[in-house]
Amino acid sequence: MSSEENALSVVALGGVNEIGKNMYVIRYANDILVIDCGSKFPDESLLGIDVIVPDITYLLENKDKIRALIVTHGHEDHIGGIPYVLKQLNMPIYATRLTLGLIEVKLREHGLLGSSRLKTITADSALRFGSFKVSFFSTNHSIPDCLGIALNTPEGTVVHTGDFKFDLTPVNNHYPDIHKMAALGRKGVLLLLSESTNAERPGFTPSERVVGEHIEEAFSKAEQKIFISTFASNVHRLQQIVDASLRFGRKLALLGRSMVNVVDVAVELGYLRLPEGMLIEPTDVNRYSPNEVVVLCTGSQGEPMAALSRLASSNHRQLEVHRGDTVILAATPIPGNERNVARIVDNLYEIGAKVIYGSGSVTGMHVSGHASQEELKLMLTLMKPKYFIPIHGEYRMLYQHRILAESVGVEEDNIFIVKNGDVVDIEQGVASQRRKITTGNTLVDGLGIGDVGHVVLRDRKHMSEDGVLIIVITLSRADSKILSGPDTISRGFVYVRESEGLLEQVNRIAASSLDKLLEEKVNQWSTYKMTIKDEVGKFLWNQTKRRPMILPILIQV
Amino acid sequence: MSSEENALSVVALGGVNEIGKNMYVIRYANDILVIDCGSKFPDESLLGIDVIVPDITYLLENKDKIRALIVTHGHEDHIGGIPYVLKQLNMPIYATRLTLGLIEVKLREHGLLGSSRLKTITADSALRFGSFKVSFFSTNHSIPDCLGIALNTPEGTVVHTGDFKFDLTPVNNHYPDIHKMAALGRKGVLLLLSESTNAERPGFTPSERVVGEHIEEAFSKAEQKIFISTFASNVHRLQQIVDASLRFGRKLALLGRSMVNVVDVAVELGYLRLPEGMLIEPTDVNRYSPNEVVVLCTGSQGEPMAALSRLASSNHRQLEVHRGDTVILAATPIPGNERNVARIVDNLYEIGAKVIYGSGSVTGMHVSGHASQEELKLMLTLMKPKYFIPIHGEYRMLYQHRILAESVGVEEDNIFIVKNGDVVDIEQGVASQRRKITTGNTLVDGLGIGDVGHVVLRDRKHMSEDGVLIIVITLSRADSKILSGPDTISRGFVYVRESEGLLEQVNRIAASSLDKLLEEKVNQWSTYKMTIKDEVGKFLWNQTKRRPMILPILIQV
Repeated sequence: MSSEENALSVVALGGVNEIGKNMYVIRYANDILVIDCGSKFPDESLLGIDVIVPDITYLLENKDKIRALIVTHGHEDHIGGIPYVLKQLNMPIYATRLTLGLIEVKLREHGLLGSSRLKTITADSALRFGSFKVSFFSTNHSIPDCLGIALNTPEGTVVHTGDFKFDLTPVNNHYPDIHKMAALGRKGVLLLLSESTNAERPGFTPSERVVGEHIEEAFSKAEQKIFISTFASNVHRLQQIVDASLRFGRKLALLGRSMVNVVDVAVELGYLRLPEGMLIEPTDVNRYSPNEVVVLCTGSQGEPMAALSRLASSNHRQLEVHRGDTVILAATPIPGNERNVARIVDNLYEIGAKVIYGSGSVTGMHVSGHASQEELKLMLTLMKPKYFIPIHGEYRMLYQHRILAESVGVEEDNIFIVKNGDVVDIEQGVASQRRKITTGNTLVDGLGIGDVGHVVLRDRKHMSEDGVLIIVITLSRADSKILSGPDTISRGFVYVRESEGLLEQVNRIAASSLDKLLEEKVNQWSTYKMTIKDEVGKFLWNQTKRRPMILPILIQV
Repeated sequence: MSSEENALSVVALGGVNEIGKNMYVIRYANDILVIDCGSKFPDESLLGIDVIVPDITYLLENKDKIRALIVTHGHEDHIGGIPYVLKQLNMPIYATRLTLGLIEVKLREHGLLGSSRLKTITADSALRFGSFKVSFFSTNHSIPDCLGIALNTPEGTVVHTGDFKFDLTPVNNHYPDIHKMAALGRKGVLLLLSESTNAERPGFTPSERVVGEHIEEAFSKAEQKIFISTFASNVHRLQQIVDASLRFGRKLALLGRSMVNVVDVAVELGYLRLPEGMLIEPTDVNRYSPNEVVVLCTGSQGEPMAALSRLASSNHRQLEVHRGDTVILAATPIPGNERNVARIVDNLYEIGAKVIYGSGSVTGMHVSGHASQEELKLMLTLMKPKYFIPIHGEYRMLYQHRILAESVGVEEDNIFIVKNGDVVDIEQGVASQRRKITTGNTLVDGLGIGDVGHVVLRDRKHMSEDGVLIIVITLSRADSKILSGPDTISRGFVYVRESEGLLEQVNRIAASSLDKLLEEKVNQWSTYKMTIKDEVGKFLWNQTKRRPMILPILIQV
């Protein structure tokens, strides 16, 4: 990355100009530390892709210099890439207990747990990796056990906030360590990397405790069963749901694999207090009277295969929602998910359920886990950094964060809005951004990591819109006469029974195009194929205004 | 629809349990009136579909009874289906001048203008169709010249509100005719059909005039070019943009086909006052200094091919946005469009533009055209209907509207939440819902209306996720020996160069499956194909965890 052996270099392999797949690399001389290794979900243009992870070409090229992967917290956009990356690059992983617990679940699923090197740290840990001295500070977020990281280097101190908010009344009484942050700022921070997810949002994000109050209120009014859905990883909210259930004498059943996984890990590690005998199996729910049960389930974002969606469309294997039951969606729909969530609410209303849904700012059933503008300014004020790189956010969020940084006194020229792969070098106290390294999206489809490229996606898109038409012709090797065909097979174009006439015409056009070329003694198969494709394509566009993928297949026997 | 010859029957062919493709049928004895004929856009599951229109089977079966299509206003969800329906069913169309003007644009594009029968009406028209006496009342909405409809029948009066809000300070000074509505209510309304789009929203929708004030303020601060994007059909907002441009001495250029179309029609018919010489060609924009020009463009919903999206990604043919220009998105993103809009904002910020974006309730740059809860209650109070059917909305909206109706005194049992096709019959003053007629979605793909069915869509979906694998084998007719192949061609599965080994294995598996069947003297081609499909499918799932569509093609020569 750096030709300058004694420079400090910082680069994002993922996480800027996007939400998700966070991965940051900090290098000093021959030592590289990696912070986070996330994944993100594909948008609708990436047909058939399961998940996206960072392109780690740079790390593979510098394997020998990598000292550790440090993980700030256990959300997918910070740990989701680990199994895919670890298959190529077995770094030691440092994280807090809960974060490691969640990473272990993933590694076990991928059969990697045995070979991985996991090291537990706390906010009080102090580590040394070559020229780096690393310390941590506690932050709040929508999952417990989050860390900010301070990296002391010969050039100065780099601080990475991870995701954070300032929840001054946290559910688990683990307060953000403002004093440690202030101490870092007082000693001098060379470079701050701070998260930008809510940089567009004015004010101060409410405490998670607010949600608990609304849950209690809703529980107090419910006369029958209560179904409540939220992000499985929000252990604080799970705790508040447990507490409210306890208070109203209700047992708790869990639905959804990720909910069961997180509760298992969180209870085992002591992050979730769940009284003995409180948890019941979903199959036992109907043995209790409706006002004695709460069902806690996945699917608050409208995921079509998750528990809530199945319950709403009355096709869950084990349970059903009845008229008069209360259903709480304790999550604001993320942009892109509104339609799926709306479909669920429609279905629940049709059943006759009482539904609490919509934006958390209206229902009180959700607060963000990310710092709003006043909190971002507070972090910047505490750290007083010389240089600033806004991270975790799309461009407009980074841009708004830049404006916030300027408003609290960071020099305009000392703020770098970077793209993934843009290297910021700091040498003798002076930062510059002039170099790039290779990075990008690695697409995961099934077992394939990075084997689905542009061409494959383009073809999927093409076929998804107008289908495919396969035209098979067999020619004699001896005299190039047509032995069979053209036979046309279509999929996803038009329903065959309704369009036999059309496909017969396609056969005729293909045959006559080929005959003409054979007569003219053209002897190039690529020309045969191209001509058939063009002629049939033109005909179909005129007839149908559609452009299916046309695949002429010529066989010589 | 009704076997009861003297019953009044009401049914939606589209518009309930959905937003879009509104179409309502009112029948009394042998007379049918149709209200609206809209279209809607497909969701992402309907791959390759351009537009959805109502299934009009019922109307085709009752052609001889249809007296008229009455259109409430000129939005796509009320007029978009007309060209497709008119091809099968040439009804006379009654609408106000602006609405007809917009319908004419559509009919011209489809070559149907000559054969259609268009009749201009006003809010003061009184029409008679068989047993129906029809009158109208003025309403406000986000397009001028909107009508509510009162249908007087032997059973009583049916009122259809169309889309509406109560804008008591409308931009064009065309007030909602509250007195006429009150008079209808006083005389007695048997059945009210009222729109439900904003039934989830508390309060009273602000006047469109509010947007004008914010536009003026933004214009007063702009130092360079102004780009402003909004819904082309919102003539009120266009007028306010024209007025603000005039006030600040700026010329106006239009970008985007629908913007040019609507402005043409609205100016010609006198709905938009545009001073002589104010409009300039996009190609002339750069002849003026930046502070002398406003560019009014389409694409406020982030549509990837529209003007704003092209401008933001710096690939518009004629114009570009420069650092320091002001770009206003005068529209709240509709759920589902946020990501595309966000991409545009990101790109504009990267250019260095000043961008005004986000929810209209924050920016003041958008107000809804639909009645909020207090307005819906006002309409219900004015009409005092005996029976009520909430229309225009997804289930939860209809449900909330029902609660509003109950709150102002409509009897619970007299409210019908219906599905498309559910017939409400009223006979001797008593309403019931017991019958259904055929209706649904007609999918338009290119020139095909309704020829893309479930199978085609399923195939498109399948191919979009994992692609297609075509395995071609030629057999000898004489002795069933393999003459050529298996040859495997893949598209959208894996990129071929990276997976030659995999496809060779597929060929081997296909060959050995076939050989085995030939040895066993199995002589059914369907068995050959099924076996190859199964064996190759199993192999690929194990190797890749993907399930491409597998098409074995066997040819005998």
